[in-house]
Amino acid sequence: MALVSAEPEGQPTRVDRRKARTRQALVRAARRILAERGTTDVSIQEITDTADVGFGSFYNHFESKSELFEVAVREVLEEYGASLDLACTDLTDAAEVYAVGVRMTARLALTQPAVAQVLLQVGLSYPSEDQGLAPRALRDIRRGIADGRFTVEDARLGLIATAGCILAFLQAALDQRDELNESDADSLAEMLLRMLGMTARSAHTVARRPLPAVPL
Amino acid sequence: MALVSAEPEGQPTRVDRRKARTRQALVRAARRILAERGTTDVSIQEITDTADVGFGSFYNHFESKSELFEVAVREVLEEYGASLDLACTDLTDAAEVYAVGVRMTARLALTQPAVAQVLLQVGLSYPSEDQGLAPRALRDIRRGIADGRFTVEDARLGLIATAGCILAFLQAALDQRDELNESDADSLAEMLLRMLGMTARSAHTVARRPLPAVPL
Repeated sequence: MALVSAEPEGQPTRVDRRKARTRQALVRAARRILAERGTTDVSIQEITDTADVGFGSFYNHFESKSELFEVAVREVLEEYGASLDLACTDLTDAAEVYAVGVRMTARLALTQPAVAQVLLQVGLSYPSEDQGLAPRALRDIRRGIADGRFTVEDARLGLIATAGCILAFLQAALDQRDELNESDADSLAEMLLRMLGMTARSAHTVARRPLPAVPL
Repeated sequence: MALVSAEPEGQPTRVDRRKARTRQALVRAARRILAERGTTDVSIQEITDTADVGFGSFYNHFESKSELFEVAVREVLEEYGASLDLACTDLTDAAEVYAVGVRMTARLALTQPAVAQVLLQVGLSYPSEDQGLAPRALRDIRRGIADGRFTVEDARLGLIATAGCILAFLQAALDQRDELNESDADSLAEMLLRMLGMTARSAHTVARRPLPAVPL
């Protein structure tokens, strides 16, 4: 019920649009804090200052700070997944598309540590997300099975293993406990291709092909 | 300096022994809470009541609740690792010892969900632990490489992948989002054996051998 609106019913009112702008400013501020400071350990005052909105407006949109950061995280990862898709449009080998996703996502720890941190904040529940990187990885595993590139029986188990390996890699790389580099990211993809049923030789070849440029 | 002690220097005094008993009672209480309630979300009062020690004594031993639970978690996992070692003493195939560890640890989500929860509380930093399950898995991977059963180049990367896969499996099983069962735990081990360089046929055979009894 838009009691005070002159706009047609069902259309967003001026108030609706202003609320949407405030919400988007808060999400953008959270993304900026995640990217620049790699942490969610900030006050709500800092968030509303960064968003240039009033402190009181925060609770009109989000119940808690962690709810806001979750929204921001999902937005970042969905955009990253779309970038990966775009970068892979010319690839016809499902195994290679899967491998590019693994290699690029594992590289985030080196190239975009704040984004990697975001992935780790969502954590081991990430494979159950219905947007972002998880459904794309599942799609690539299923395509690989359909094309006879992968022989794994259970695509869901393949997704769980893929996500677990990448998350553990990101954590180890961010902790700097193993001095992981780009070649290690490719080795991880090679191991995962073997895990999905490819021979050692094929896995090695596919995981070392030149990477497409991923616009991020 | 044991100012009020009549005991020989360097020997634990009566006060030392009482302090050690209180500390152990607190750790035992934390383990009981983890096992019976599967959570660390309890008050310090509940912990000291469970331990049957005075509320004030808590901070003589631990700076925070999470410090206590971390100690308890490491104790549980070290004992579990020792149980796994004991159960595998008669096995001569390094790949099988590794596979038993994966199959039994993944099964924790089904047989001992509170212990699985404990593992997940430590989380993706777990592969860097210097006691418990991580150094044992690394040892088994290195043995497998030395015996020519595994061909993976980097044992540390093998450990990261192993830990990530098991943790993601535990999380998925506890979330009940994939209805994972014992056969899935074995399939995960089979996938990991392939990942470490075994052929599909060998991996399948090793991951389906009868499991030894693990005293827990």
